[in-house]
This record gives sequence, C-alpha cells and structure tokens, in this order.
Amino acid sequence: MSYPPVMPLETMNARIQRSPFNRWLGLEVVAATSDSVRTQIVWRDEMIGSPDAGSVAGGVLASIMDSTASYAVAAATGQMAVTLDMRIDFLRAAMPGVLYAEGTVIKAGRSIATVDVALQDSSGKIVSSGRVVFFRSSSQ
Amino acid sequence: MSYPPVMPLETMNARIQRSPFNRWLGLEVVAATSDSVRTQIVWRDEMIGSPDAGSVAGGVLASIMDSTASYAVAAATGQMAVTLDMRIDFLRAAMPGVLYAEGTVIKAGRSIATVDVALQDSSGKIVSSGRVVFFRSSSQ
Amino acid sequence: MSYPPVMPLETMNARIQRSPFNRWLGLEVVAATSDSVRTQIVWRDEMIGSPDAGSVAGGVLASIMDSTASYAVAAATGQMAVTLDMRIDFLRAAMPGVLYAEGTVIKAGRSIATVDVALQDSSGKIVSSGRVVFFRSSSQ
Amino acid sequence: MSYPPVMPLETMNARIQRSPFNRWLGLEVVAATSDSVRTQIVWRDEMIGSPDAGSVAGGVLASIMDSTASYAVAAATGQMAVTLDMRIDFLRAAMPGVLYAEGTVIKAGRSIATVDVALQDSSGKIVSSGRVVFFRSSSQ
Repeated sequence: MSYPPVMPLETMNARIQRSPFNRWLGLEVVAATSDSVRTQIVWRDEMIGSPDAGSVAGGVLASIMDSTASYAVAAATGQMAVTLDMRIDFLRAAMPGVLYAEGTVIKAGRSIATVDVALQDSSGKIVSSGRVVFFRSSSQ
Repeated sequence: MSYPPVMPLETMNARIQRSPFNRWLGLEVVAATSDSVRTQIVWRDEMIGSPDAGSVAGGVLASIMDSTASYAVAAATGQMAVTLDMRIDFLRAAMPGVLYAEGTVIKAGRSIATVDVALQDSSGKIVSSGRVVFFRSSSQ
Repeated sequence: MSYPPVMPLETMNARIQRSPFNRWLGLEVVAATSDSVRTQIVWRDEMIGSPDAGSVAGGVLASIMDSTASYAVAAATGQMAVTLDMRIDFLRAAMPGVLYAEGTVIKAGRSIATVDVALQDSSGKIVSSGRVVFFRSSSQ
Repeated sequence: MSYPPVMPLETMNARIQRSPFNRWLGLEVVAATSDSVRTQIVWRDEMIGSPDAGSVAGGVLASIMDSTASYAVAAATGQMAVTLDMRIDFLRAAMPGVLYAEGTVIKAGRSIATVDVALQDSSGKIVSSGRVVFFRSSSQ
C-alpha cells in the first residue's frame, strides 16, 4: 500500500528549479509516493558522451540517478539528504528520447537512507541501475 | 617507474573535443603516464547542485571521475573502453575553482580494466574518490 | 512468467557439497527458476562477528550473498562464473536462526552477468542487500 | 608521518579472540598506525571456494577485508564501528599460503569512516581490493 510523499511533488519541482545543474539536466519529478519517485528528462545532444556511439554519457545517467534518489529520500522523509556514496551499473547504451528514472527507498533509517534507482530509455529497457546511500544530516 | 601513455595526450584531448558532454564539462587531460592520467575542469555556476550549499553537483563529480578513469584506460591500453560500473564516495563538498582528478589503473586485464579515481578541489582536499570498472570491448 | 533453471537444483547442491567453504556455510539451494535462486543456511555460533552484539559477521553474510548470486547465474546460464565485484549494504543485525537469501539475475550478457541479492533472517526482515557482478569466463 | 594507533595492537588482538568468526578466520593484526592496520591469516583447506580452481572463496576474502577495515577504524578512532557497506573487486585467484591485508582510513568523519583495503597472497600480488564504509555508532 502506498501513501502520499512527505514532501509534495510541487515542492520537489520548485526546488529542482533552484538547482542550476538539475535545471541543466531538465529534471522533472512526475510521480511520488511515500517511498518512491519517478522522474524524467528529455535527451539533448550535449548529453552525448561517446562521439562514435552517440549514446548518453554515463555521467549524465549518474546525475539523473543521484538526483532521483535524493528526491526519493525527500518523498520518504520530507527532507533533503547528503549523498554519501553511489554505485551504478551501466547495462546498455541509452538511446535518444525521454529517459525515465525510478527511485525506491529500501531503508530510511535515523541517520542513513538507502535508495535503489533504475533508469530506462524510451524503448522501455533498463539502461542503468544502482544504489545511492545518503546521510540524513538533519538527524545529526 | 613510469612510461609514456600508449594513447598520446594530444589524441586524448582531441577526442574529448568530439564528445559533446566532455566539452560541456570543459574536461582537459593535463598529464598522462602508462597507467594514469591527470585531468582538470574549471568550475562553472551551472554545475552547482544544491542551491543552499552552493557546491558542485555529485553528478558533475561523477562525470569527471568516469571520464578521467576512461582516459586512464586509454593511457594504459591505447583504446577506449566501456564503463561497466562505478562506485563513488563523496567525502566533502567541492568548493568553487579548478577541480583536479587523477585516475590510476590498478589492473588492465584482457577483458576488464579497474581504475581508481580521486578528485580534489583547489583547496587541495580530496572531495570524492572511487573506482570505475571497464569492459575492454575490443577484446570481445 | 518463470521457467525451470538451466542448471538443475540437484546439480547445484551436488556442486556445493564439493566446495569446502560452502559446506562450512551449510549453504543449500532450496528453489530455482530460470533467473533466480533461493538459498538458506542455518546460523551457528562460530558465525558470530561482534562478541558484544551476538550478530552474524558481515563476512558470513557477504559469503552467503556471493554464493547465492553465483548460483543465480548458473540457474540462468547453466554455467558457473567468476565474481568480478560485489557491493553489499548491511541494513540490520542478523539475528540467530535460519538465514534466507534470494538472488535474481538482472542481466546475463554474453560476457557479464549482474545479480541482485537480498538476505533475510527468520524475522522476515531484509538484513543485507546488494549486487554481485560476474565474468562469464566460458564466453571468452 | 605516522603515529601509534589509538587502540593498541594488543587490545585489537584480544578483541579478535572474543569474536568467534574472526577466530575461525585466524585473523591477526600484525601492525598498526594511527590510520592503518596490517593483518594476516593462514590459508586453510576449508576456505576453498571453487573445488575446481582450488582458490580461496571470495566470501573469505571479503571477511578478511571487512574485519581488517574495521580495525583500521579502531586504530584511527579507538572505537569499533558498524559496517554500512562494502565494495570489493576480485582481481586474481588467491593461492594457498599466508594472506596479508592492509586497511587504510581515507576519512574518519564524525559519523562516517571510509577505509580502503587491499589483500595480497604470498606471491605478493594484490588479489582483491575494495572499500568499506562504517557508521561510527558511538557518535549517535
């Protein structure tokens, strides 16, 4: 059973507008529950990494996944947290088009929050998946 | 003892110019040996993640680290490789100014290459450090 | 929809009996499909890590997770593979009793297989969860 | 420049004797400074993972690395900490004989400690290397 997010969707997207890099990414939170968020971005040419393959740079995928995971923590706790570490597996090349990410909180402890994130391209295939661990600094 | 890189520095930087996202980052390889590279980028306002802290987005740091690691593989093998996975620890907030990254190949096997990367800001402190694993696709 | 494992359950358990360390763990594969396995072990006192907390050593949990993941690859491909890297999050202390692990293949590529693993204790709570990446050496 | 460990070597080894699993491993701390420890174990047949290759189980290597890293934190802080996550790369098969591990604290923050660990076999080659992150629970 799923509940509404502790931080409302509108608050998340307003906050994204105040982050220069998330604005560059064009990140948007399109859905949220009490333990997950779904985001999307529209692929742009300047996100291409390998000039030969024409695929999105791994760093861009990592950026989307980190931001998506941080808003999953906000959805679960109402507060932003600090990224401690991330581990990402790149499974396939991301093709041009809209990219979708889903972040799911697997544990929101008093000090540490752990989030799984998967990213898919417009073909519906998972192109990267990983985990991001956060320190809930407000709990210090 | 250190030898020259198998891929020359000029070839690396010419290749970076053909990668739209590395060009957006402003990445430059400033030194290379047969098992390591040193890169730098100049911090820009649009790289800021948290609007409150004013620090560089974790995704930007991850991007610099992934690209730096991939050129360390090129330095050791002469060829680009595909990122399989990355794991990054964020140790401190990165302050405005030039960011420096150093990638060191810890093993370049027939199929897999493993690279350690550390990133420091202009204060000289390590702000993030991690490991990137590559698949040497040309060995397939 | 789920299919039978490519390597039969009996073959897996016979193989475990030939591995001294898996025998020490008391590992048993209790269920398998074409992309997952479920294993269990019975907790013993010599598996305790911290003498104060009385909980199972993290290394024992990591061992169960590595072996479980390797049999998930066998279930999906019919062959054993070599562990390239593992990343494990320890979420809670594991209490005495039977421990259950579930490994699910998220991608079995030509050269690389990626497996998610979660481990729960007899209370039903997830105590650790992570990912193990394998090199399918027979594909070389 | 290196200082003596905050927790004395003798205290570490006495504590290891009270941990059933570390005793099973036969772990011994043989050297320590204020930010590192060096440990060793003597290989035994029951540590073998793959019956075909005759090499040490990855889980045994992970166990040595987790314990070694935890004593590196003790060397730096005087206190034991709780493992949050570990990431280990397996670079080569570990051959029979004494195994040596070295753990180096790369950051001991107020709440989080981050430790690099490398493990070598008696041939002197690094067989696995990785990172372990701890939560300093006493700081809660």
